[in-house]
Amino acid sequence: MNAPTDRLPLPEALAEQLTSRFGARFSVAAAVRQHHGKDESSYPPMPPDGVVFAESTGEVAEVVALCHGFRVPVIAFGTGTSLEGHLLAVNGGICIDLSAMNHVLAVRAEDLDATVQCCVTRKALNAALNGTGLFFPIDPGADASLGGMAATRASGTNAVRYGTMRENVLGMTVVLPDGHILKTGGRARKSAAGYDLTRLMVGSEGTLGIITELTVRLYPVPEAISSAVCAFPSLAAAVRTVIQTIQMGIPLARIELLDTVAITAINRHSKTTLREAPTLFFEFHGSATGVREQAETVQEIASEQDGQDFEWATRPEDRSRLWQARHDAYYAGLGLRPGCRALTTDVCVPISRLADCVAETFADLDAEAADLKGPLVGHVGDGNFHIMLLTDPEKPEDLTRAKEFASRLAQRAIRMDGTCTGEHGIGIGKQPYMALEHGDVAIDLMRAIKQAIDPDNIMNPGKILPPA
Amino acid sequence: MNAPTDRLPLPEALAEQLTSRFGARFSVAAAVRQHHGKDESSYPPMPPDGVVFAESTGEVAEVVALCHGFRVPVIAFGTGTSLEGHLLAVNGGICIDLSAMNHVLAVRAEDLDATVQCCVTRKALNAALNGTGLFFPIDPGADASLGGMAATRASGTNAVRYGTMRENVLGMTVVLPDGHILKTGGRARKSAAGYDLTRLMVGSEGTLGIITELTVRLYPVPEAISSAVCAFPSLAAAVRTVIQTIQMGIPLARIELLDTVAITAINRHSKTTLREAPTLFFEFHGSATGVREQAETVQEIASEQDGQDFEWATRPEDRSRLWQARHDAYYAGLGLRPGCRALTTDVCVPISRLADCVAETFADLDAEAADLKGPLVGHVGDGNFHIMLLTDPEKPEDLTRAKEFASRLAQRAIRMDGTCTGEHGIGIGKQPYMALEHGDVAIDLMRAIKQAIDPDNIMNPGKILPPA
Repeated sequence: MNAPTDRLPLPEALAEQLTSRFGARFSVAAAVRQHHGKDESSYPPMPPDGVVFAESTGEVAEVVALCHGFRVPVIAFGTGTSLEGHLLAVNGGICIDLSAMNHVLAVRAEDLDATVQCCVTRKALNAALNGTGLFFPIDPGADASLGGMAATRASGTNAVRYGTMRENVLGMTVVLPDGHILKTGGRARKSAAGYDLTRLMVGSEGTLGIITELTVRLYPVPEAISSAVCAFPSLAAAVRTVIQTIQMGIPLARIELLDTVAITAINRHSKTTLREAPTLFFEFHGSATGVREQAETVQEIASEQDGQDFEWATRPEDRSRLWQARHDAYYAGLGLRPGCRALTTDVCVPISRLADCVAETFADLDAEAADLKGPLVGHVGDGNFHIMLLTDPEKPEDLTRAKEFASRLAQRAIRMDGTCTGEHGIGIGKQPYMALEHGDVAIDLMRAIKQAIDPDNIMNPGKILPPA
Repeated sequence: MNAPTDRLPLPEALAEQLTSRFGARFSVAAAVRQHHGKDESSYPPMPPDGVVFAESTGEVAEVVALCHGFRVPVIAFGTGTSLEGHLLAVNGGICIDLSAMNHVLAVRAEDLDATVQCCVTRKALNAALNGTGLFFPIDPGADASLGGMAATRASGTNAVRYGTMRENVLGMTVVLPDGHILKTGGRARKSAAGYDLTRLMVGSEGTLGIITELTVRLYPVPEAISSAVCAFPSLAAAVRTVIQTIQMGIPLARIELLDTVAITAINRHSKTTLREAPTLFFEFHGSATGVREQAETVQEIASEQDGQDFEWATRPEDRSRLWQARHDAYYAGLGLRPGCRALTTDVCVPISRLADCVAETFADLDAEAADLKGPLVGHVGDGNFHIMLLTDPEKPEDLTRAKEFASRLAQRAIRMDGTCTGEHGIGIGKQPYMALEHGDVAIDLMRAIKQAIDPDNIMNPGKILPPA
């Protein structure tokens, strides 16, 4: 496969054909290329050689077939909200901007599913579902495109109840590296008919094909929703509360952990007055009596762990206020060090190791400079937590230290039977941990699959798989 | 790839090496071969050329590596309960009997997971979980091995709540066609780290490797369980009840449909006195008040559809009696025509099409001979239903008619956006529908994956993929 330095100039003949076919919808302007060469990660921009603004699966297939003929890399671009450098053109090539493919194609309330073009965002889908009594639950922090979320196997705060994109994509349309259009899955809720191509494409990060349409599962809006927040004397006490709650089988919709730094940042950013201590945010979905029962049980568990200020909110405006504070955590964190960028870690461990993993990680974090230390926020029902490391772009040593810390954390999680990435994907930066996490036999098998499907390595080269 | 007729004699040198390595645990005795060449489908036996009784992953790897050297087919044998001819040695070769690999290796109550050898059955795992407060939910009719269930992407009556093997396998150990030992997945609840090899192996029916160990999800035994049964004036009324129940988001653990033939057969077989009409069996899991609420809501929905004799059971012995009747349906069905064999269909459609699919199928069934007509049982919360066709082994025309009916049904389900198999797998008989269901691009991609992983086509040849 190509090494990241294998950057060749764009063939003139390809540029001519793209111009002839797409006119102004093909651009090599520096500003356009620059915009499509950066994401929300801490990596410096790597612009593609040109950008095509595609409007249909057929157009995407045309572009890919042309690039295939010239063996030129192809990278899909949705909302640009990757945290792992997924869309950086490390080998140059053509970026396909999919933002015009933002139509909800069908909502089938009776079947609890919807078919969308790839650049419908999660919020746009939920807006389109307004009034149907249904919703789509997966919520990464960003208002990402559903195609991008599928490509990175994204999840978010309520995966503990509703699963990740892995569980919630029923089928998809994918443009393969040779320009053929693949349909995977279907609309049946389950199937035992052959290899699971849907799950192979979910999480493939654009390296096997470009997802252009998806059919996703929807869920009935619960009859009742309530939220609660509770502060704890220590992270360990909060984590013990999580473990007991999960083990009792309480069907929590969300259970989120924030550390003292995160709460302090939120109070400052959102003018809230939360107790500045490790805190759990809960959300309960069910019948009116069901959510009351759940909240009461959780309150009992929390009080055994010296939880304080258990605040329970059932009115929508109170719930929104609580969860807005949680959702502001990322920007609140950035506000702790104005002008900084964030490197966000993403490990996930079995829940029995969560307390150990958090404790070891904080012991490690103690050694870091104070202004590097950002908040911890965690989807702890899944054993997944993030630490934001705040780096000053003017101080390269900040990024170096942050990367070293993140590397130790990834290795710690893998040692604890976990993963280096719960929901952000591998992209560029986590390739060094792939063999450690999966073993050489698995890496060889992934390479064999990549080689079989994309022998010329034109699909988003330089991502997921480390150079052989 | 080899055609089904490509049956070569077992190389003598291979037989000698297997004898030298495994002694009496390698057998070419006719009775042993015969036993390992048949399953619970309607296909005639196709015995392998020899059987190795393996006791560890390492031994499986040794056998596969030896067969790989001679390009001899390898077939895994667990409990022999396939309904689709998965273990028939269509090209001969070596069968690996895994029945000694029946140890539960670890139960991690804190993490709600367990690691087992491949031939632990679902009942054996649940017996091992006794006293832990946890259970494993997936329940195909047979007491199948967990490895076989993963290989066929099995599910059962409570997939509507707990998912299928696709959702419940966290990771596995797989012996690849060259004898290498692959570890997939891990123990983290979610991961975005690379291609989903676990889901690629789930449902691969032994054609990509042999699953020797699995880590599966466990669930807390619900605080309360209750069951209900309700008869309806028509299948359509029962199906409407299912649709409304699902759409209201009631978290049913099971919702099973049985037609009049099935109930009649059960009454005869199990000495029950159920009203002989289309009937739904329900099971509710949750808190004591939760299950009462669920049952009350379902009773309201059912009564709007003229449901009768709504019987609600909360005591374990009453629940067992109800569900035993449901689980007896297969053998009760066979009892309708003594000496018969059953050909069991397995379509699954979007729930909005379930009523149409059942109605068209019954219209079609009307044309069949009375003694061919067996019961309908359905995991209808998923849109999945089975019709047993009772064939007399002495009358080949029975099997011909049954196959033609099943073929029309499979094509009908696919036309309705469904699948030819919800949970039994493709095996031998459903290959003709693969291209119709998935399209040629998908079939070519599946072939490319098979070719990349098993270039000599030694892993369970003749299954899943139709000859090119």
